[in-house]
Amino acid sequence: MLTNTRSDRVRGVRALSRRAVRERQGLFLAEGPQAVREAVVHRARVIEDLYVTPTAAARYGELVAAAHEAGVRVHEVSDEVLTAMGDEQAAVAPQGLLAVCRIESAVLADVLAARPRLLCVLSSVRDPGNAGTVLRGADAAGADAVVVTTNSVDVHSPKVVRSTAGSLFHLPVVTGVPVEEVVEAVRAAGLVVHAADGAGDRLLGDVDLWPPHAWLFGNEAWGLAPQVRELCDDVVRVPIHGLAESLNLAMAATICLHASASVQRA
Amino acid sequence: MLTNTRSDRVRGVRALSRRAVRERQGLFLAEGPQAVREAVVHRARVIEDLYVTPTAAARYGELVAAAHEAGVRVHEVSDEVLTAMGDEQAAVAPQGLLAVCRIESAVLADVLAARPRLLCVLSSVRDPGNAGTVLRGADAAGADAVVVTTNSVDVHSPKVVRSTAGSLFHLPVVTGVPVEEVVEAVRAAGLVVHAADGAGDRLLGDVDLWPPHAWLFGNEAWGLAPQVRELCDDVVRVPIHGLAESLNLAMAATICLHASASVQRA
Repeated sequence: MLTNTRSDRVRGVRALSRRAVRERQGLFLAEGPQAVREAVVHRARVIEDLYVTPTAAARYGELVAAAHEAGVRVHEVSDEVLTAMGDEQAAVAPQGLLAVCRIESAVLADVLAARPRLLCVLSSVRDPGNAGTVLRGADAAGADAVVVTTNSVDVHSPKVVRSTAGSLFHLPVVTGVPVEEVVEAVRAAGLVVHAADGAGDRLLGDVDLWPPHAWLFGNEAWGLAPQVRELCDDVVRVPIHGLAESLNLAMAATICLHASASVQRA
Repeated sequence: MLTNTRSDRVRGVRALSRRAVRERQGLFLAEGPQAVREAVVHRARVIEDLYVTPTAAARYGELVAAAHEAGVRVHEVSDEVLTAMGDEQAAVAPQGLLAVCRIESAVLADVLAARPRLLCVLSSVRDPGNAGTVLRGADAAGADAVVVTTNSVDVHSPKVVRSTAGSLFHLPVVTGVPVEEVVEAVRAAGLVVHAADGAGDRLLGDVDLWPPHAWLFGNEAWGLAPQVRELCDDVVRVPIHGLAESLNLAMAATICLHASASVQRA
């Protein structure tokens, strides 16, 4: 059992809370039973190491056994070591489970070659909770992939990973492509691109969501830049009743993605 | 201008961050330009006092003028006083504006007497962000009222007020009634009661959302208790595709409420 909280290994894992270190090393943290379970079940090949406290090993015996079976290197660690490894800013305790995973970014050309029917594109989204929730919503809508453009939050930050509730391990995620390039490539592949924006001139209910399409969602505060909206086929808004001025990004995206699934998966 | 951060007034306002004090005094805090604006525009009568820093008075001149016109008592305060008055745990700064408002709980019998077509009931919801987001979603769906049952988060806590983005001042909110009583009264008033639950046996798309109805949403972790579900007309789930196991409460509620609006407001 690893008990030295000051070892190089512990320090190395802990450093993955920082974006620069994640990018340099190509690794990220998945903390807690939900994220670890989804990683083990759906993408065990990306798990470099799984750290488990004795308590968690007893409580999540089945999960740890599945990890062993999948060929994952499992290390028993003390509670103190696990705490020292994890994201300090986590609002939720990792409950004795932490996986170091390899970043496996999907390639946009591959995603498009697979003839997707529903894509979700996040442009300049900055809030980790919003990004994670939209990723989860895309997964629940059966989207074929999520694309996160440059200038967006790092989807491998501990907070985004947590808020995806495991969906990060469920579908391909493309990162680091400028939004203009994404829209151009997606349209060239034959998909319709719907920008979602509270100021859109088309109502969601009037849009035909049967043909293969991509939803483009912008920054939580300022939406999509005019020059980005112009690249899209249309700009769609979720109708608002009552006195509410707007929906937040995650809510609007959830509604749009669900609407697509309702039509495509009916 | 008020500059003494240790005055009784400042201490009294700051104490409203605590639930017990809010309940004893019947007052709560609305912090920041968005919440204050919605209070001034839609429910100025509940504002006891509005505190404004000189910077905010210049920046939000129109809003402050509207408050004066609505008969609100406006006090100029130093930055230090405003900071001392606000919720210490706020992740977002109040930007120089803080209103002390009177809690104005709606009465369920009055809400039902007005023949509502769409109600949103939150049962044992504990997370402030979830509760606020659902309230905002209910507002955007044109719901006639929101009911928050006993054992739920205090909707007048600073964090819920913030996350409603002003919607708390847009529609009647009933609090403090046990869920069984709410469901009984709502059904007696002729509304259909749909429980929303990931384990529901009816799909959202199969439910007729034209007749007047209430959505019942449960706790974010454990959903609705079996004995509560049994009181409802049906238990409805949002279909999930992809590999996602579930949607979070706010996402599921947003989808259900939007579905109701799509039918009732088409």
